[in-house]
Amino acid sequence: MSDRASRRTFLQTSALAGSGFLLPDEGAQAQSAPPNETIKTIRSLRSTHGNFLDKPVPEPALETILQSSLRAANASNNQSYSIVVIKNRQMMKSVCGYQGGCVLLYCADYTRLKVCAETMGYNYDPGTMEGFVTASTNATIAAQTAVIAARSLGIDSLLTNGIHRGDMERLWKLLELPQTHCFPIIALVLGYSTEPGQLKGRLDGPGVIHSEKYHTLTKEETGAIILKYDDKQRNLGLNDDWAAKGHKHYLDWFFKDWMRVGSKPAVQQETQILRLLKRTRFVEEPKA
Amino acid sequence: MSDRASRRTFLQTSALAGSGFLLPDEGAQAQSAPPNETIKTIRSLRSTHGNFLDKPVPEPALETILQSSLRAANASNNQSYSIVVIKNRQMMKSVCGYQGGCVLLYCADYTRLKVCAETMGYNYDPGTMEGFVTASTNATIAAQTAVIAARSLGIDSLLTNGIHRGDMERLWKLLELPQTHCFPIIALVLGYSTEPGQLKGRLDGPGVIHSEKYHTLTKEETGAIILKYDDKQRNLGLNDDWAAKGHKHYLDWFFKDWMRVGSKPAVQQETQILRLLKRTRFVEEPKA
Repeated sequence: MSDRASRRTFLQTSALAGSGFLLPDEGAQAQSAPPNETIKTIRSLRSTHGNFLDKPVPEPALETILQSSLRAANASNNQSYSIVVIKNRQMMKSVCGYQGGCVLLYCADYTRLKVCAETMGYNYDPGTMEGFVTASTNATIAAQTAVIAARSLGIDSLLTNGIHRGDMERLWKLLELPQTHCFPIIALVLGYSTEPGQLKGRLDGPGVIHSEKYHTLTKEETGAIILKYDDKQRNLGLNDDWAAKGHKHYLDWFFKDWMRVGSKPAVQQETQILRLLKRTRFVEEPKA
Repeated sequence: MSDRASRRTFLQTSALAGSGFLLPDEGAQAQSAPPNETIKTIRSLRSTHGNFLDKPVPEPALETILQSSLRAANASNNQSYSIVVIKNRQMMKSVCGYQGGCVLLYCADYTRLKVCAETMGYNYDPGTMEGFVTASTNATIAAQTAVIAARSLGIDSLLTNGIHRGDMERLWKLLELPQTHCFPIIALVLGYSTEPGQLKGRLDGPGVIHSEKYHTLTKEETGAIILKYDDKQRNLGLNDDWAAKGHKHYLDWFFKDWMRVGSKPAVQQETQILRLLKRTRFVEEPKA
């Protein structure tokens, strides 16, 4: 896609319409701030789904990406995360299902703080769901900062929760993660993409951006969203052959074939993530 | 702080040392990629703790920040988040404890998708801890993208979990959030800082960055980390008067006075976050 077409797609798909305070599609270009280099970098973000060259990320670039990642804000400056840098290609695949120049595994992690506390004689227990939410937020903020830094250096990326697929216990075994108070949140694959550049669209307007209070979607707005996903110009979907597969709407494909909502039991089994959050002591047990 | 001093602090504090593959402090400048505008923007990130001018964020800038935020990657392009834009100053304060030019509240949110599914006749239940982790990650990635976009436009910010303090139910009441499958993750205060610019340092090296596998801290490394927090040149702490307050190390102040580890009961009570994750149906109940 040319720069011009790419820019047009960005403006079409990210113009914020319909909530009153947000701009109509037509006005977005005129009303936005002029793009600087950072905004251009962000506009060019796209995920590479596995098609990376077998080429490492140069050390100076990786160093800059890691430095940038650490600059991200975090609660109380306690950096309750760990970053495992994986350059072994087989390990990348085993960890997240993808291979690239390298993988950065971001974990919510209180181990370092706990070890310091124990060394100093304190009994520090961050093992609560509150602790998990804080630490996973810290880890994710750092991960996205790395994504943007990498993109500015011409390095493509994929943020993937592929680590949460399959038997997650493999992560503890393969990477020798601490048994408690450490939980892998997201893997960042960095490298050089061989995929053709096509920016995905994004849904905007009602149901995504809310003004002052949460806005409950009307029937009309809901219908409009369903049709937006069908509009190939907007490029919101994961595929564009849903009609050929016999679906009336893209979201029929999404719910039926992708999310498989019909074939799942109505009563939830415990997810692996909840089971492992319990095992790693991030789900506190209230007193009876 | 001058640009030069600011840059020196960045290099001192973010040089990655000690894990073998990472560079020693002295070499960081030489070995890093030359900074471009985006890297410079990231290097200049700092949190403003409440001292924002009473001055709104201009609409074109806010539009660009929101557009940028939406560009962030998300799982299956289902954008399982909502962004509530708050411009009412009293509401900002009630929601997150801070006031600025505006507040963007990022929520993990499946409501839009659920409403579409129900309209189309599907019984879609994303209410699991797995669904929560995915959606909260999506929301946080979008939030940090907004932070970096804002900074590039000269707009300061604070990412705060102040929303999780006090009675969190206020958020559902004040903002009319959906009762299920919607959970506030982080608030982003945007505006113009009046605080003197001082970049916080970041811990790096062993215990933060791991090479290929998780590295368990040695006694020596743990001792070195404790001393790093004491080193005022590194600016890692939340204050620098911990010694005057009678503490031997910064981390004594951190664990005793800030985390108050001694005064908390050993057995955990259920945190508000866990209770509300249950109420919003993000904690699945396994069958007995």
